[in-house]
Amino acid sequence: MSAPARNVVPFVSVDNMMRLIHAIGVDAFLAGLGAYLEEDFRRWEVFDKTPRLASHSRNGVIELMPTSDGTLYGFKYVNGHPRNAAQGLQTVAAFGLLADVGSGYPMLLTEMTMLTALRTAATSAMAARYLARPDARVMAIIGNGAQAEFQAIAFQALLGVDRLRLYDIDRTASIKCARNLDERGLDIMICDSTQQCVTGADIITTVTASKQRAVILSDNMVGAGAHINGVGGDCPGKTELQRELLLRADIFVEHLPQTRIEGEIQQLPADYPATELWRVLAGAAPGRTSAGQITLFDSVGFAIEDFSALRYVRDQLTPAFYEELDLLADPDDPRDLFGMLMRAAPTAAGA
Amino acid sequence: MSAPARNVVPFVSVDNMMRLIHAIGVDAFLAGLGAYLEEDFRRWEVFDKTPRLASHSRNGVIELMPTSDGTLYGFKYVNGHPRNAAQGLQTVAAFGLLADVGSGYPMLLTEMTMLTALRTAATSAMAARYLARPDARVMAIIGNGAQAEFQAIAFQALLGVDRLRLYDIDRTASIKCARNLDERGLDIMICDSTQQCVTGADIITTVTASKQRAVILSDNMVGAGAHINGVGGDCPGKTELQRELLLRADIFVEHLPQTRIEGEIQQLPADYPATELWRVLAGAAPGRTSAGQITLFDSVGFAIEDFSALRYVRDQLTPAFYEELDLLADPDDPRDLFGMLMRAAPTAAGA
Repeated sequence: MSAPARNVVPFVSVDNMMRLIHAIGVDAFLAGLGAYLEEDFRRWEVFDKTPRLASHSRNGVIELMPTSDGTLYGFKYVNGHPRNAAQGLQTVAAFGLLADVGSGYPMLLTEMTMLTALRTAATSAMAARYLARPDARVMAIIGNGAQAEFQAIAFQALLGVDRLRLYDIDRTASIKCARNLDERGLDIMICDSTQQCVTGADIITTVTASKQRAVILSDNMVGAGAHINGVGGDCPGKTELQRELLLRADIFVEHLPQTRIEGEIQQLPADYPATELWRVLAGAAPGRTSAGQITLFDSVGFAIEDFSALRYVRDQLTPAFYEELDLLADPDDPRDLFGMLMRAAPTAAGA
Repeated sequence: MSAPARNVVPFVSVDNMMRLIHAIGVDAFLAGLGAYLEEDFRRWEVFDKTPRLASHSRNGVIELMPTSDGTLYGFKYVNGHPRNAAQGLQTVAAFGLLADVGSGYPMLLTEMTMLTALRTAATSAMAARYLARPDARVMAIIGNGAQAEFQAIAFQALLGVDRLRLYDIDRTASIKCARNLDERGLDIMICDSTQQCVTGADIITTVTASKQRAVILSDNMVGAGAHINGVGGDCPGKTELQRELLLRADIFVEHLPQTRIEGEIQQLPADYPATELWRVLAGAAPGRTSAGQITLFDSVGFAIEDFSALRYVRDQLTPAFYEELDLLADPDDPRDLFGMLMRAAPTAAGA
């Protein structure tokens, strides 16, 4: 994008984000986002890895997730309020900001509810390219809420998945999901149980909203060679996979110190081996090494993924897709903020 | 303010903030803000006191400053880039957000460069009401940059200061400051040295942009009974006051763990006594106890002050002073984010 004046910040609304996604094309957007994610995972070591700053309350959590590569700074505001759904509100809403490290000035403010859904799916698909069997074509999705379709199309677009098996404790969610994917040319089956759903699946995505330690997927359900894409277990006390299943799998994570607390591996000892995914992308560690291996991407979401998404959006933006926000006071003389205020007084009586 | 729809977030631009300040009146705005600050300082113990999350770089720092009282959540984004001034940019630019803890939904997004200048001045004046001599009328301001006029009018409006003595190493800054305050009915003297500036002052405000450990104010300059309002020393390695002067003063701070690192008292042992200001307001500790005492408010700025400012602005807002931002995706069915995206597709070819 061309640079607007320093005192205005380009703002991408939900409406403009959706227009941008459609202008690029959903599949191309996921592929482009995936390329930015790969680039940032490969240079993982240059990033600040501050823990997310969480404010917990009875109903949920509000988090700030910042990071920086030394040139750009990004952060995401995101909430997680499971009870919101009962009131017709999103359980997760997010927005984000990209700023210039050199001057501290914000460069982009954007909705990130839609963008997070896409970056989560693109991250899952990126991991699966290194961890699933190359011939994987059948994906089970357990939990058919807001993230399910994004996972499906990312795996279709980026891995060539062509058969989908859906299961949700609420069948209407599976029906919604299948209907939304109707024109994607996927062979879709709605299942009556987790067991039925995972049977014959090469890739198993768990993305339920369960808040407690749940066993969405038990050890006996998963056969040799499967790749498990664990997306739903993403905070302390929230897991989806049976402990015994973890012990059979080779485990890959985003940022180990965070995943030890928030991921499936919170069920395991603190020194249990797990590989940070960026090392696989950078060639420093193997991904899948055999067809019979069970791999698990224990994904909790990390600030660097949001950074990649912010960076991608910034690079795709043209003025047609943003508004200019008058967010930053910009006095002619930086020492004269008060003079700026006084000169803004109404010409009549006023102040 | 009346509640707009849940998916739009009221946004107060710099222009609207200045209009709001003038509509209320600068003095009344400072007084109203001061009342909110007092209320929040008195209930200090209910707040989250997370340390600010700072991202340091060669040129400066970008910080996120969140807090919550359990009902509302607020955070401020603020940078500090001293070299910006040379390029005609603000050294400090800020914006902030207020959110509902119960749902996690943002309720207000606002510029905070202007608002921070006012809250800093209102906080200083509030502290001085408890720490300066009741008959204090003469204020010295050392450092006549962007914050100086705000300090002057807050102390005039809230404490009855009527004589001002200005000093800056750059005399044009003092001239700018005096000119901006021309119509306020203050007796203003521009001084040639710090010594001249502080002579006869009841209140000494230090608010320079010096980045190193500097001795803006030395022990021998300050007489009995003075109140020192130390605003400029606000990060590790940045101080303004001579150590010997600190040893003669009774020291009051915002949040001790933060001030130990960022304030003037970083020059003193970690167990050196200092009183958190909220305790004085809550009646749990004395403020000034004698006319001869030297008091110091070692101010570094704390997230709760921004929270008070956000809360005050929210309560003053009418639709004339905000725009509505389409920041939050709001599908009819919270589980159907993807359907919302698909329905936004252009009706012709598009995606």
